[in-house]
Amino acid sequence: MNTVELIRKKRNGESLTENEIKFLVDGLTHHKIPDYQFSAFLMAAYLNGLNKKETAFLTNAMLYSGIVINLDFIKGKKVDKHSTGGVGDKTSLIIAPIVAAAGINVPMISGRGLGHTGGTLDKLESIPGFRTDVSLKQYKSIIKKCGAVLAGQTKEVAPADKLIYALRDVTATVESIPLITASIMSKKLAEGIDGLVLDVKTGSGAFMKKMEDSIALANSLVDTAKAFNKKVIAMITDMNQPLGNYIGNWLEVYESIKILNGEKVEDLLELSLNLAGAMIMLSGKANSINEGVEISKEMIASGKAFNKFLEIVKLQNGDINFIKNPDNYPKSKFNEKIFAEKNGFINSIDNYNIGMASLELGAGRITMEDKIDPKAGIIFYPKIGSKIKKGELIAELFTDKKDKIEIAKRKILEATKISARKESEQLKLIKKIIR
Amino acid sequence: MNTVELIRKKRNGESLTENEIKFLVDGLTHHKIPDYQFSAFLMAAYLNGLNKKETAFLTNAMLYSGIVINLDFIKGKKVDKHSTGGVGDKTSLIIAPIVAAAGINVPMISGRGLGHTGGTLDKLESIPGFRTDVSLKQYKSIIKKCGAVLAGQTKEVAPADKLIYALRDVTATVESIPLITASIMSKKLAEGIDGLVLDVKTGSGAFMKKMEDSIALANSLVDTAKAFNKKVIAMITDMNQPLGNYIGNWLEVYESIKILNGEKVEDLLELSLNLAGAMIMLSGKANSINEGVEISKEMIASGKAFNKFLEIVKLQNGDINFIKNPDNYPKSKFNEKIFAEKNGFINSIDNYNIGMASLELGAGRITMEDKIDPKAGIIFYPKIGSKIKKGELIAELFTDKKDKIEIAKRKILEATKISARKESEQLKLIKKIIR
Repeated sequence: MNTVELIRKKRNGESLTENEIKFLVDGLTHHKIPDYQFSAFLMAAYLNGLNKKETAFLTNAMLYSGIVINLDFIKGKKVDKHSTGGVGDKTSLIIAPIVAAAGINVPMISGRGLGHTGGTLDKLESIPGFRTDVSLKQYKSIIKKCGAVLAGQTKEVAPADKLIYALRDVTATVESIPLITASIMSKKLAEGIDGLVLDVKTGSGAFMKKMEDSIALANSLVDTAKAFNKKVIAMITDMNQPLGNYIGNWLEVYESIKILNGEKVEDLLELSLNLAGAMIMLSGKANSINEGVEISKEMIASGKAFNKFLEIVKLQNGDINFIKNPDNYPKSKFNEKIFAEKNGFINSIDNYNIGMASLELGAGRITMEDKIDPKAGIIFYPKIGSKIKKGELIAELFTDKKDKIEIAKRKILEATKISARKESEQLKLIKKIIR
Repeated sequence: MNTVELIRKKRNGESLTENEIKFLVDGLTHHKIPDYQFSAFLMAAYLNGLNKKETAFLTNAMLYSGIVINLDFIKGKKVDKHSTGGVGDKTSLIIAPIVAAAGINVPMISGRGLGHTGGTLDKLESIPGFRTDVSLKQYKSIIKKCGAVLAGQTKEVAPADKLIYALRDVTATVESIPLITASIMSKKLAEGIDGLVLDVKTGSGAFMKKMEDSIALANSLVDTAKAFNKKVIAMITDMNQPLGNYIGNWLEVYESIKILNGEKVEDLLELSLNLAGAMIMLSGKANSINEGVEISKEMIASGKAFNKFLEIVKLQNGDINFIKNPDNYPKSKFNEKIFAEKNGFINSIDNYNIGMASLELGAGRITMEDKIDPKAGIIFYPKIGSKIKKGELIAELFTDKKDKIEIAKRKILEATKISARKESEQLKLIKKIIR
């Protein structure tokens, strides 16, 4: 096979065969095809698209560039959830213990913060001692012991994805639905799962801002999961405002502990219960999402979910004292409060800039070299569709960087428009379910 | 400026500014932008196109990546011709002496054989001793002395073009009209010319097989030349059969000598006179192409053109004895004749495969490492629209490679279809003039 001919085919809008796509991916992985040829292919794929079959072929080639974990030695179904990422989205921390407490295995491989969004690994690592870089052996042993594992992507999993993602990042080929699909699904399919719940975010704090793009991505993910005979449900959920109120690594662990202890943070609880409910349904332990939601509620009410979280943290070397007594966690040097400057209504929030403000305070990386401050972040109160009074608390900032307070404050005030007239109702959280 | 943002702009179909295109080209030339980013840009440019302005900006950035030769110290106009390449196209060797004999400077930088086509440099180097790799100083001195120079592209001329062409070649981004335009024009504009005649080939032996593509390329070249205030004429000429009868390096020099000595090889003479005539017109020494053709005929009839060719060859270190007595040139080991297998008519010729047959015999490079045999090639007699009799001589092959004779023979017989019915008239050679 000839690389130039394959690039030419995609350039001309033709479809590539399974072998042709495998040739390209294997060539990149084994350094037989240079980056400059693969990036030309990526741009041709970006502009001319990949059809359903090609997307599945690409996913498969990327999946089998590394090991595919076999969890057959563990009894019971294995179900995971993947979110496309947002601001304040800590549902993984809540769902994994709920679903594992219900007797279903949750082998979860997560990522780090990207752009304005947080990452599950960074959040977990805010728990002192918590190890996300577990070996394949530990991964299998932890899930065998407690029914869940919250780990990072090991070198052995989908190495082609790492190479391709690095190239996409510098060649303006990130925002492609088939390329995003193959990247997500190659990693998720390597986990050894039977079913997958997808949380596709839409809105100002999501990577897909437009509903139509989120639907297209959800359909592509669902089609690809089905091509691999996996049970799958995608929920398109609102990301026009932070999910819950806490943004930042430890702050999000803190809010997750509150939920697992039975506190009712409206939107965060609703989404967590529905995602967990869908996972329980996919496992066969419930006949509907609603039945799954009821089981999930029981897991919280009975304390089983919280106990499962303690078990997971302990097995992954985390200090459970901070989970039991979260208020003992070290405090940021600075704690700044922001108050509403006038009366009015919250009609919209620029959620991207809420995420960026949190990054500025130290909760994320602005450059690759930045170290994350686990304590840093924001508690953000306003919700779209609500009334606000002058002097009411909008947000609390936590940071060790004094010089970033004003920058973050300005971003938050600009992102939170207060208008005289009410123009928006409360947002619907789960906008669409695709299966 | 940010490379990813510029790739994204072109990916989204937006136009780039002069500074943005310069940033990309300079970045590649000075190794500040890696190949994998530039190749993604090339694919985006291939698929989304570059408009007239962007094409001129790209040409300019490539042109000024190297030196632009200043020939102001030489009196008189400087005019060149560029052909997009074909089979048996040796007009450069005929035109340069004719036009220089008419008192116009011809500073000609040529290329090597590419694919199935021959290259002027390879043809000239078949003359023992002939040097095409002249320094910039020699280039200026030769044209000052005799009014013409036939040289290769020096390192100093458009280095960006070399880098970009090498990338295009391996990323399936060769066949793009704006990219071809910038590649041709950046080199031609570096020569220090006042005017340029373009011979854009069309048909089975050309790179552009379709008339509409050839017209589009001709228009793009003419627009770009005008953007640089150069006088310009483009002729779209037929390449559905070899030009003249001789194909191969020395064989083409041989046929050029015949023309310069007054022999009438119909199509080759007609095109050479018209291209030379157009060059003379652009210089201001004739008011029309026809007037230029008359001057060109005089240059041949008077022997001035042939003498000018001797002068050029001598100044470039070539052995003029072979120009004076071309039949003394070394002979190929094998000389195979091919005869018509039946009576009929020549309705079409697969000219690409005539070129490929010549390559097989040793006249060109099939891989980069191949050494050219200057003696090798074909004399090919049939012309479309003519009658042929069983046993009539179709072609003579010249080669030192015995094992290639049968391959070349088969290619030539297959490329030359003899049909019972006459379906094609003689082809019109100059199909369109664009200025």
